Amino acid sequence: MTTSQDIKVAVDAVVFGYTSKEGLSVLLIKRDIQPFKNGWALPGGLVGNQESLEDAVQRELKEETGISINYLEQLYSFGKPGRDPRNRVISITYYGLVKPDVFEIHADTDAAEVAWFNIKKIPPLAFDHQSIIIAAHDRLKSKILYQPVGFELLEERFPFSELEKLYMAVLDRDIDRRNFKKKIVKFGFLEETTEKQVLEGAGRPGNLFRFNQEKYFQLQKQGINFEI
Amino acid sequence: MTTSQDIKVAVDAVVFGYTSKEGLSVLLIKRDIQPFKNGWALPGGLVGNQESLEDAVQRELKEETGISINYLEQLYSFGKPGRDPRNRVISITYYGLVKPDVFEIHADTDAAEVAWFNIKKIPPLAFDHQSIIIAAHDRLKSKILYQPVGFELLEERFPFSELEKLYMAVLDRDIDRRNFKKKIVKFGFLEETTEKQVLEGAGRPGNLFRFNQEKYFQLQKQGINFEI
Repeated sequence: MTTSQDIKVAVDAVVFGYTSKEGLSVLLIKRDIQPFKNGWALPGGLVGNQESLEDAVQRELKEETGISINYLEQLYSFGKPGRDPRNRVISITYYGLVKPDVFEIHADTDAAEVAWFNIKKIPPLAFDHQSIIIAAHDRLKSKILYQPVGFELLEERFPFSELEKLYMAVLDRDIDRRNFKKKIVKFGFLEETTEKQVLEGAGRPGNLFRFNQEKYFQLQKQGINFEI
Repeated sequence: MTTSQDIKVAVDAVVFGYTSKEGLSVLLIKRDIQPFKNGWALPGGLVGNQESLEDAVQRELKEETGISINYLEQLYSFGKPGRDPRNRVISITYYGLVKPDVFEIHADTDAAEVAWFNIKKIPPLAFDHQSIIIAAHDRLKSKILYQPVGFELLEERFPFSELEKLYMAVLDRDIDRRNFKKKIVKFGFLEETTEKQVLEGAGRPGNLFRFNQEKYFQLQKQGINFEI
């Protein structure tokens, strides 16, 4: 079997973006080449012979969307025969969660367009990329239950409701807000400041919060156990 | 890059075995071919052109060790250039936890020997297989903290201490036994029977336990949150 194997290896990236205003989104490219020409797809492509998987996914992201993200995590390898109409291609997928505002996306090699799509408004996608996004979203949902999240996504100081919003957007469901706050406070990766929230309407302004970086990164390694 | 890619795709399996007497072990084969001829390694091999990744890992396990295990989970894809001295090979790895007694292992194609090795006594291994085992063990350790485990590994009725032993063997550390029992009882996937343990020495025999299958499989899907 050694000499006759005819399988190609690709990497694909599911880059989730989060903003308080837009919620959860996914970075997609419009394909400039066949198959699925003009169809939307995840950024990705074939791995170079001497390139690590991580370098390959970085390079493809850079080439197709113009952005660099150096903290993607491996998600899963999709290898079903027939998933690519050209030949057998196994895709090793990566995912990450970023703040879209800090990236200037622009289409480049193999991509006619690049855009963020709200997770609820994903267009029909090339290949099995829809299943890949579903798997990545599932992984992200469980990840935020055992690792603190938000440090790179929220402002330096923010009302507690912003963290609730983030969790609800990622989990795509309501949370028990009272219980949520109790647990977050207990974990200790968030600190209440004495600074007050600026409210646009009426109501009593709450204090702003900030991350305790040391505790945050310690818990990121160590893991939390979170039932919301 | 499409036409010139020269990368092979393999699958490798980390099959963990557990017995109350021997603790945690790993199934290894002695390689019958170069490179690392006569070296110990994980069972595995190249993926067939029209074969799913799951079928490939089943086939390799069957061919090299004589056993069939149909509930392996994908672990991670290892793709560092140079991990195989022959050419670039990316290995998509799988892992599982079984009761070794129910399998009759025997070496076959490409394997000179096959044996279970206690996790503390793993010999030097071919390729990067040691890192793969470490990654699989880490995954298993976190898995048993969010999914019930033991149904396929323990007797139908067992003293509670057998479940403690299993957790301690997989986690490779002591556990807070009092807290552990409290949590397990709360999860509800274990039922206390009125049958008594048969003790060989002195002491007051405790009741035997059995799994509540319905609850067990429900929690396996739903997940538990376990701090030990």
